[in-house]
Amino acid sequence: MPDPDTRAYSPGLEGVVAGETELSLVDGEQGRLLYRGYPIGQLVERGTFAQVAELLWSGEWPTQAHLPAGPLPEEVIALLRGLPAETVPMDALRSAVSLWGALTRPQWPPTAEQARALTAFSPSALAAFARLRGGQEPIEPDESLDLAAGFLYQLTGERPDPAAARALDAYFVVGAEHGFNASTFTARVIISTRSDLASAVAGAIGALKGPIHGGAPTEVVNQLHEMGSADQAERWIREAVGRGERIMGFGHRVYRAYDPRAVALRSVAERLTGVADWLAMAVQVEDIALRVLAELKPHRVIKTNVEYYAAAVLQGVGLPPDLFPATFALARHAGWTANCLEQAAANRLIRPAVRYVGPAERSLPA
Amino acid sequence: MPDPDTRAYSPGLEGVVAGETELSLVDGEQGRLLYRGYPIGQLVERGTFAQVAELLWSGEWPTQAHLPAGPLPEEVIALLRGLPAETVPMDALRSAVSLWGALTRPQWPPTAEQARALTAFSPSALAAFARLRGGQEPIEPDESLDLAAGFLYQLTGERPDPAAARALDAYFVVGAEHGFNASTFTARVIISTRSDLASAVAGAIGALKGPIHGGAPTEVVNQLHEMGSADQAERWIREAVGRGERIMGFGHRVYRAYDPRAVALRSVAERLTGVADWLAMAVQVEDIALRVLAELKPHRVIKTNVEYYAAAVLQGVGLPPDLFPATFALARHAGWTANCLEQAAANRLIRPAVRYVGPAERSLPA
Repeated sequence: MPDPDTRAYSPGLEGVVAGETELSLVDGEQGRLLYRGYPIGQLVERGTFAQVAELLWSGEWPTQAHLPAGPLPEEVIALLRGLPAETVPMDALRSAVSLWGALTRPQWPPTAEQARALTAFSPSALAAFARLRGGQEPIEPDESLDLAAGFLYQLTGERPDPAAARALDAYFVVGAEHGFNASTFTARVIISTRSDLASAVAGAIGALKGPIHGGAPTEVVNQLHEMGSADQAERWIREAVGRGERIMGFGHRVYRAYDPRAVALRSVAERLTGVADWLAMAVQVEDIALRVLAELKPHRVIKTNVEYYAAAVLQGVGLPPDLFPATFALARHAGWTANCLEQAAANRLIRPAVRYVGPAERSLPA
Repeated sequence: MPDPDTRAYSPGLEGVVAGETELSLVDGEQGRLLYRGYPIGQLVERGTFAQVAELLWSGEWPTQAHLPAGPLPEEVIALLRGLPAETVPMDALRSAVSLWGALTRPQWPPTAEQARALTAFSPSALAAFARLRGGQEPIEPDESLDLAAGFLYQLTGERPDPAAARALDAYFVVGAEHGFNASTFTARVIISTRSDLASAVAGAIGALKGPIHGGAPTEVVNQLHEMGSADQAERWIREAVGRGERIMGFGHRVYRAYDPRAVALRSVAERLTGVADWLAMAVQVEDIALRVLAELKPHRVIKTNVEYYAAAVLQGVGLPPDLFPATFALARHAGWTANCLEQAAANRLIRPAVRYVGPAERSLPA
């Protein structure tokens, strides 16, 4: 073992390349996000979440794909039924995934079939939780619907508006994968011990739950609510900037040019404005916000980030804000599980070193 | 962002120091393991798991400490009751911890009180699972007993033999903490997003479940069973080595000199041989194995590792082998939660970089 003090020291592992991936390229400088080489804009424009998930799992673009929500074991329904109504949705989802693993016992190595089953299970579980906490019974999945539309159906019992289903599917596509973020890295560390896919995804949900990683999408929703309508947006934004407040949904840590996910979602939203007023408002408010911010903060480059359209879409399809983080987790199942497949295919235990800075050797008090 | 190719590349993060810790020093060269400066031998000899856990959480050695098993919420009992008898115990424990988090909602930042409550909860949950799968009802914790003795009581309904309780407590002490292994690192990554303690420990259990990390203690037990008695150990070992088989429980990846945890557990076992025949056998078989291995493999330094005494103790106290990994997890709760407290006290998101090696940018098929 080398002397600890001569080794690379990187608290937080910033700038340390912990592995290789073929799944996604996050190119902050140029505002590019590629899944296996395909730009996120094309994927949103011409693909569905079912196709994107299969692309991530298999490496091949399927000309068509169908991924309906999965069945809920009665044990999972019993678990969700027993949760207090005030349970944090991410806690409910993490517990449901853990129980799914206990019941189905996915074996090493993780497979695309396991990934498909788990990705299909979680929307049913989250929808059932949302209904049960409101005193309603869960709804069986509709096999004819893909995951995003099926999730909305299981939430409400009604077949969703096509614009809402399309917008949520586009949101699932842009949320599916994004490099070695903390939750994806968690999933890879867990699977690297030759543990199972449910352990990895339950751990990833736990990591995504943290506000540093999962963000605070509720704040964007609150803003849109406070603005009330596009007419009042300009005054609201000017006043907020005047008070020194940050406008949520604009600016990003990684993307300097623009957030390609926001661009892709806007493009879908623009085509749907005729069928959904809330998408029209989101597009109008974005234009106003960018114009006002450019005027008031001319020396800063402020671009729309994915949180803005995420909030607009999730609010627009009728999700209560406290379900936003868990709904993001549903989309990210595709990436988490694809990362597990990739890690397992060329596995190496992920185990960094640590520097001991505690007391020198000493004796217990007599 | 620097060009990816100029950054430190370390798949698996081997040799990358990912942080600092005051909790434990794992010194493989010299065969030392210190918790906050105190050698593991002294801690086992003169301390209890309750004291060691408080030391890890608070940094101070308490002159006395008492840590009884915690109460089980009815929702957790219902969950465990609903699990099929063939459920993997680690899956049951991970699910119980996740549900505990959903019910108790521990807030950021993690606290010693949360750590104590979760470390006290899990033995009750695992014991209840073990009873329920066998058709028996769970047993309420006995507040007068510390965690190791209390766990045995909740498994059997009988107050444990003092030698068994002392041996299991010593096992809990040596299992409490061991640097940045994969499960501890998982817990730190999860808590670094400002997620909660239950999310971190549920993720850590998932990582420990993997056989590369959690090991295969059952194999040592099978050996001890096959030997049958100390009288037959020598012949059994000679024949196994003659067939080219590895003798489980000897040799370690990190410890070159000797595994200080095995030494510490042997010292406890030696003093208890008068009160427990199985501890006497474990000590005798170790002596025989070391003598025979030194004779048959003179050029290799082969020392007893912690797995050997772990198996001897866990088998000796009457645990079924399939509970060994989850029992190890109970002990490691102290270290996982202490690492979460340490991470949170000087938090920095743990998020490495990744190198994209997938296809260059391309267009979807027309």
